[in-house]
Amino acid sequence: MTPRLLVATANRHKTAEIREILGGTWETFDLHDHAAGAQAEENGATFEANAQIKALAAAARFDGIVLADDSGLEVDPLGGQPGVRSARYAGPGADDAANRARLLAELRKTGIAPSEWTARFRCVIALARQNEVLGVFHGTVEGRIGEKEQGEGGFGYDPLFFPDGFALTFAQLSGAEKNAISHRGRALRAAADHLESLRSPRR
Amino acid sequence: MTPRLLVATANRHKTAEIREILGGTWETFDLHDHAAGAQAEENGATFEANAQIKALAAAARFDGIVLADDSGLEVDPLGGQPGVRSARYAGPGADDAANRARLLAELRKTGIAPSEWTARFRCVIALARQNEVLGVFHGTVEGRIGEKEQGEGGFGYDPLFFPDGFALTFAQLSGAEKNAISHRGRALRAAADHLESLRSPRR
Repeated sequence: MTPRLLVATANRHKTAEIREILGGTWETFDLHDHAAGAQAEENGATFEANAQIKALAAAARFDGIVLADDSGLEVDPLGGQPGVRSARYAGPGADDAANRARLLAELRKTGIAPSEWTARFRCVIALARQNEVLGVFHGTVEGRIGEKEQGEGGFGYDPLFFPDGFALTFAQLSGAEKNAISHRGRALRAAADHLESLRSPRR
Repeated sequence: MTPRLLVATANRHKTAEIREILGGTWETFDLHDHAAGAQAEENGATFEANAQIKALAAAARFDGIVLADDSGLEVDPLGGQPGVRSARYAGPGADDAANRARLLAELRKTGIAPSEWTARFRCVIALARQNEVLGVFHGTVEGRIGEKEQGEGGFGYDPLFFPDGFALTFAQLSGAEKNAISHRGRALRAAADHLESLRSPRR
């Protein structure tokens, strides 16, 4: 029997990426599929707090393992912003395009040369079961912000993010290429290793 | 130097009880005193999830140890209600008197004899530092619900709760008597032992 894993997000893009990376090992579904309550408010000031808060809130309503992600973009010339505010940088309920437009506007305001628009995506994954956090896993990818959007793939800030060593943005890479180096891919593989150890504890 | 402990609650009654129990060992202050962000929403379905969510949300904004409490009353003839909804049983923002009135009304509706209105207070304390839950501690006190309010002390459902072995409600006991047997007293003493071990890890 394929074990069930609840991904505590209402973001279909994230669920899709997580499915790609976890492959067929787990039957994943998300908060659209399961009435494990509304997504928890992200009141934490860090990715780590937010991921654990989301995981615990869903796990208390679900009989099984819950995986929650919190992630965002830290831009050096902006002092690490938007960080935990990445998804709502242009205001509550802002869409990806509005968030990207604000990011470019803020960067231009700094007067700092685009060659120095260094940044990193960070992802924190928390696993929880019932009332317990089972583990917290980190992934980071360093890169820089481009002056204009490039590519149609991905979501969020992907069309603006050039991972180090690549002349293409995350939105121009294939899903598999992006997952191999991305913040979420790295955190998820660490989480997946831990999930595997939970399945076969005596191994 | 007295170490600082942030009590992640905006309920002054809870902070006062926690101060009484922890004594002079810790300099306690609460969310009225420290801008560690608004109290986290209690989205969890269990005391355990809520306590950890509140502790993590505050700890991400505070340089030190955070203690968060979640607690409530489980009434057997009501199938464990109001439980995690104890503080808002009569609706959002309801005061203690309204919550008590609803409790008595619901109990009378059941037709079950008051001698069988058994209940328990449960308290869960979570300790967190930065992004990590340091421990989760439980306390329970068994008792029964009285047919009318008695006593002026305490808060919440105290005037209706007769702890087992006592002919007085929590609101008729002194603070010290209540703390000695209460759910919060028990959970806090377990948490205090753990806090003490954090202060002197080599002992």
